[in-house]
Amino acid sequence: MRATFMYKAGDVRVEHAPDPVVQQPTDAVVRIVRSCVCGSDLHPYHSLSEDDGPAPMGHEFLGVVEELGSEVTGLKRGDVVVAPFAFADNTCALCREGLHTSCPNGGFFASGGVGGAQAEAVRVPQASGTLVKLPVGEDSALLPSLLTLADVYGTGYHAARQARVDERTTVTVIGDGAVGLLAVLSAKQLGAEQIILMGRHKDRTDLGRYFGASDIVAERGEEGVEKVRQLTGGQGTHTVLEAVGHMPAYETAVGVVRPGGVISRVGVPQYEDAPVGFGSLFGPNITLTGGPAPVRAYIDELLPGVLSGAVEPGRVFDRSVTLDETPEGYRAMDRREALKVLVTP
Amino acid sequence: MRATFMYKAGDVRVEHAPDPVVQQPTDAVVRIVRSCVCGSDLHPYHSLSEDDGPAPMGHEFLGVVEELGSEVTGLKRGDVVVAPFAFADNTCALCREGLHTSCPNGGFFASGGVGGAQAEAVRVPQASGTLVKLPVGEDSALLPSLLTLADVYGTGYHAARQARVDERTTVTVIGDGAVGLLAVLSAKQLGAEQIILMGRHKDRTDLGRYFGASDIVAERGEEGVEKVRQLTGGQGTHTVLEAVGHMPAYETAVGVVRPGGVISRVGVPQYEDAPVGFGSLFGPNITLTGGPAPVRAYIDELLPGVLSGAVEPGRVFDRSVTLDETPEGYRAMDRREALKVLVTP
Repeated sequence: MRATFMYKAGDVRVEHAPDPVVQQPTDAVVRIVRSCVCGSDLHPYHSLSEDDGPAPMGHEFLGVVEELGSEVTGLKRGDVVVAPFAFADNTCALCREGLHTSCPNGGFFASGGVGGAQAEAVRVPQASGTLVKLPVGEDSALLPSLLTLADVYGTGYHAARQARVDERTTVTVIGDGAVGLLAVLSAKQLGAEQIILMGRHKDRTDLGRYFGASDIVAERGEEGVEKVRQLTGGQGTHTVLEAVGHMPAYETAVGVVRPGGVISRVGVPQYEDAPVGFGSLFGPNITLTGGPAPVRAYIDELLPGVLSGAVEPGRVFDRSVTLDETPEGYRAMDRREALKVLVTP
Repeated sequence: MRATFMYKAGDVRVEHAPDPVVQQPTDAVVRIVRSCVCGSDLHPYHSLSEDDGPAPMGHEFLGVVEELGSEVTGLKRGDVVVAPFAFADNTCALCREGLHTSCPNGGFFASGGVGGAQAEAVRVPQASGTLVKLPVGEDSALLPSLLTLADVYGTGYHAARQARVDERTTVTVIGDGAVGLLAVLSAKQLGAEQIILMGRHKDRTDLGRYFGASDIVAERGEEGVEKVRQLTGGQGTHTVLEAVGHMPAYETAVGVVRPGGVISRVGVPQYEDAPVGFGSLFGPNITLTGGPAPVRAYIDELLPGVLSGAVEPGRVFDRSVTLDETPEGYRAMDRREALKVLVTP
C-alpha cells in the first residue's frame, strides 16, 4: 500500500509500505476512506530531526473494516467505522472514567509500531474498544463531519468540557485552527453566550462566527489581552480554551482568564515549564486543565448531532487532496493557505 | 500598643507601634484575643531582605470589636469575632462566587498599609464583609479551634474542595504542617476513605491519623512517590492536596497523581515556573488548581462543627506564647519544635 512518512522537518513523502495485517487477536485492519492532516502534524513538520524520521503520519481516519482478529467483537467486515486518534480497550477503569488516552492497553496511531492514517490502510489495535460503527455508506456526504469525531471536534469539545463551560460561563477561545473553531462550536453547544474567538485569519474567524463566536479579537499579545478585557468589563472570561500549544498562547490565556477561572489546554504544549506561581495562576486561583482528548468518550454524545445535520463540524475542511498529494496538503496548512486538509486515498 | 515586625530573615521583634484607628467608615478596630504564627510566615523568615523590612506580621486572629466606622453594619462593640486572613466586601460578584481573595475592595492583613495580627489590636478594612461574629466569650475553650477558621482550617478545606474530594476519590496530602493536617480533616469530612499523608514528623502524622489519614508515607522524593503508588495499585490518587509550596512538593504531587486527577495547591508557591507540559500535566490530563483560600466563604459551613465539638482543628496548636515571646514562637516553628504557635497578648 501507499503511506505517508515524514523524514525530517518539511520533508513529507508518500511511499510504498507493507500492507498492514492483524498481529494480535484484538486487532483489525481498516481500509481508509478519509483521513486528514492535523494542526499537531505541523509541530514535527517544523521540528522533526532526521534521526527521528522517517515517521509514519496521520492519526485521524474513517474507513471500512477489512480484517478482524479472532477476539474482536461487535464488528464485521464491511462496517464503516471511525476511530479516535488514541486506541483504547474501552473496558478498563480509566476508560470507564472517560480517560481513554491513559488506557494501559492503549496508545496512539502513527507511533509505537502502529502505522499512520495518511495511508491506504491501517492496523487498529484494541479494535473492539476503539472503532465505532457509523450508520452511513462510504459515499456519504457526512464523511467530513464524521471524520472530525476522530480528533478535532472531540478535542474542541474536551477543552470546553474540562473547563466546565455552561450557560453561565463566558469563554475565550485562543486559536482559529480547526480545534479552536470546534471549541467555539462546543462551547456554544454547552450553552455559553459570550464566546470570544482570538484569531487573525478572517476566513477562519468568519467560520468561528458561524459556529457561535460572539466576538472576534484579531490582536495578539498584550493588545489582544487588553481587547478581551474591554469586552468583559475588565475582568476576563471564566474559561479560556487554549487550542494552539505555543508559549505565547499560554501567556495570553493567563492574561485573559478571570480570577477563579479555568484555562483548558488542548493544543499540544511545545514547552514543558510555564508560569504557575503566585503571579500567574496561584494568586487569582486559576485552574489549569486539559490534555490529549479522550475523544472516544465523546463520540456517542456528538454523533447524533452530526448525523442529523444539526452541526456541521466538517466545515473546517477547506481543501481536499489525494493521498499522493499529501505533502502538498502539509505545505498548504503550514502556509495557512488551508485550514484543514482532507485526504482521500 | 505592641506589635510584631520582621526586620529581615530570622529577625523578628515585638515593638511599640501606634494604636490602630478607624481610617475609613467601613473599618473596625479589633482588640486581639488570640493570634498565631503561620507556616507561610516562615517563608519571609527564611528570605526577607533588609530592604523589605520591617514588615508587620500576622494574618490570623480572633478578638473583640472595639471601634466601628460609621458605615459598618451587623456588628457592635464587644462582639467576639474571627476574621479570614484576607479582608473583603463580601458583596461583589467575585465574593458572591466565593472568591473573596480576589475581591476588588479586599486585601491581606499585614500588607498594603494594613497592620499585622501578631499585635494587641488591628484595623480591619471592610469590617462588615470580613468579620464573623462568634457566639462564644473571649474565655471560651473553643478559641484555638475557632482561630483555625481564620486560615489553616479554611485553607485545608479549600484544597480539598478545589480538588473535588468526595467519597469516591482517593487523596494524597503532601505536608504535615497545620494546613496539611487540616486538609486531611477536610478530606475526611468530604467523605474520602483513603487519605495518604506524606510527612515525616511522627507527632504530626499521629495527629494526621487522628484527623483521618488512612496511611502515612514518611519517605520523600522518588521513594515517597513509589510508596504512594504501592498503596494505590500503582496508579496514584485521584487528588493531591499540596500544602508545602516548595518545588520538591510540586514534583512529588506530579509523581503521585493518578491520570485524569487533580493537584490542588494551597502551599504558597516559592517558585514561579514549573513543569506543566506533555511529560508532567498535559499528557495524563492532570488538572492543577488552588490558590489563596477564600476562607470567608467557608466559615459559615465549618463553624457549626467547631462549635459542637464534632471536629477539633485547634489541636494543631501545640505551643502557646505571649505576644512578647512571639520571636521565640518563630524559632520553635522554624526548628520544627512546634507545629503551630498560638499567641496570646
